[in-house]
Amino acid sequence: MSRRSPNILVFSPSQTEVDGYVESIRNQGFISVKGATTFAEAEKYLPSTEIILGWKFPTELLSEPIAASVRWFQSMGAGVNDLILDKSIPETITLTRIVNQFGTHISEYVFSFLLYIVKDGQRMQESQLNSMWDPFISDTLKGKTIGVAGLGSIGAEIVRKARAFDMSVSGLSFSGNQASLVDQHYYPDQWLEFVKDLDYLVLTLPLTNSTHHIVNKDILLGMKPNACLVNVGRGALIDEGDLITVLQSGHLQAAVLDVFEKEPLPKDHIFWSMSNVFVTSHLSGPSTVDDVSTFFIENVKRYLNEVPLHGLVDRQIGY
Amino acid sequence: MSRRSPNILVFSPSQTEVDGYVESIRNQGFISVKGATTFAEAEKYLPSTEIILGWKFPTELLSEPIAASVRWFQSMGAGVNDLILDKSIPETITLTRIVNQFGTHISEYVFSFLLYIVKDGQRMQESQLNSMWDPFISDTLKGKTIGVAGLGSIGAEIVRKARAFDMSVSGLSFSGNQASLVDQHYYPDQWLEFVKDLDYLVLTLPLTNSTHHIVNKDILLGMKPNACLVNVGRGALIDEGDLITVLQSGHLQAAVLDVFEKEPLPKDHIFWSMSNVFVTSHLSGPSTVDDVSTFFIENVKRYLNEVPLHGLVDRQIGY
Repeated sequence: MSRRSPNILVFSPSQTEVDGYVESIRNQGFISVKGATTFAEAEKYLPSTEIILGWKFPTELLSEPIAASVRWFQSMGAGVNDLILDKSIPETITLTRIVNQFGTHISEYVFSFLLYIVKDGQRMQESQLNSMWDPFISDTLKGKTIGVAGLGSIGAEIVRKARAFDMSVSGLSFSGNQASLVDQHYYPDQWLEFVKDLDYLVLTLPLTNSTHHIVNKDILLGMKPNACLVNVGRGALIDEGDLITVLQSGHLQAAVLDVFEKEPLPKDHIFWSMSNVFVTSHLSGPSTVDDVSTFFIENVKRYLNEVPLHGLVDRQIGY
Repeated sequence: MSRRSPNILVFSPSQTEVDGYVESIRNQGFISVKGATTFAEAEKYLPSTEIILGWKFPTELLSEPIAASVRWFQSMGAGVNDLILDKSIPETITLTRIVNQFGTHISEYVFSFLLYIVKDGQRMQESQLNSMWDPFISDTLKGKTIGVAGLGSIGAEIVRKARAFDMSVSGLSFSGNQASLVDQHYYPDQWLEFVKDLDYLVLTLPLTNSTHHIVNKDILLGMKPNACLVNVGRGALIDEGDLITVLQSGHLQAAVLDVFEKEPLPKDHIFWSMSNVFVTSHLSGPSTVDDVSTFFIENVKRYLNEVPLHGLVDRQIGY
């Protein structure tokens, strides 16, 4: 292979993950790859590093002289709100995030919960636990209306599956680029109109200045009393205090929350024990080594050929 | 309305259901409708009845002289194995079953369980119960292979949804009519070949002489050790004794059973307490009053116009 092999540093707190990435990348012929799992290792390998593939990277190192050769930081995640706000990362470092890799996982997560709720999986489980023959009639997703806030690759995949379940589909997005995917499209000044007829509201939006606490008491109370809320975007899209108040008042059937304002969700947080809240541990869109490696290697090739990178982050827009 | 209004008898042990049907049918202009919930009521209204819409009807009455005017018996269910074997029903009575009405309900049921299993919903629930932050990576339906035995309207709807989840799809059927729906089609002499690479085997077959205990030890052991079995057809498609032995040996990941050889499933049956068995109470394809009424009224119109009925049962073939 005649192409240039840039110095790549892989960072993650998980040694297994780092080993997996280093091996994948080397197998593609990029031999100058180092792996690091700690601040000290990162510090040691940073001089002469050109590209970082990172998760929970100690970004304070990036404003140091040892990071002078870093040109590009590829995050292993889709959400980069923390990196954008991080003043330690010089503007000269190109920032990319993972895109188009989470649609499958997240849409399967979303439909597993929508089906569990609509078929009343809980009642089925309780009947089995009590050896009780209980042939009840459950509702169907067919005929229900789902609203997807955020029509990027994740939202688009949720819409695609909603079609297979014969649901009506509304969407809200900033750009309106993907408006043709949905039956009814709304812009951010139309939140109340967007949510009022939904049976399910699914949040896949990035967290930016414009989306912080966008789902507040007014929006929640504007939803149907029996509607469900699913958040697979970022915790701070929702005003959690408002959500708790609204749920406790008996409004909304359920909330499925994979992301939280503070993660890990504190052990004593009320969400864990609320009967109409499903808590999961930010696992709906996992960055698997295979998927992220494939994405990253394709991006490295684009980088070397000076083709625009996938998942390029616009710090002004915020994602 | 100038058309003839035949004498219709609606029978079900549930008064609510009977009232619902009677009202629906009358609303369509068929005014000679009686409802019955007991043997005595059925006996009282049977003379001069031409059409029966029935569920758990006391069929012994049908060989009596009072049933001489009955021409057509419409079952409220999709499976009619019991009615076919029932020697009290004269061959002169046309028998029809519900078709094309259960695909939505049953396919949603099937995918609720496939997703619960593949995403490991149980682990998510246990983590929440213990307030434990537990970001594990779950598997995906994408890339898995599903095998659907029976490619009628229910099987076809399961295939359609499997496509939306990017699964590979195999199918087994007697007629081969719908072979083009699936990636690989098998006939009943190819069961072992059919099941050997499946991650999920879903049974939607009717119960006939040829399908009784078709899923036995040989078939179960011919499946992958980690495969899952889902039965939404009839209990006796599976040799339950063989299934218990195979599951207890650690072969197969799970069995999702909505139907059983004996229903209601006896209170002391081992299925209730097996950790890798999901028991539900023959509820995956409910005969809702709305759906069955719509189907029946369309069929009454066909009957009056002497157009072939939907769901006509062939007693020789067995469904």
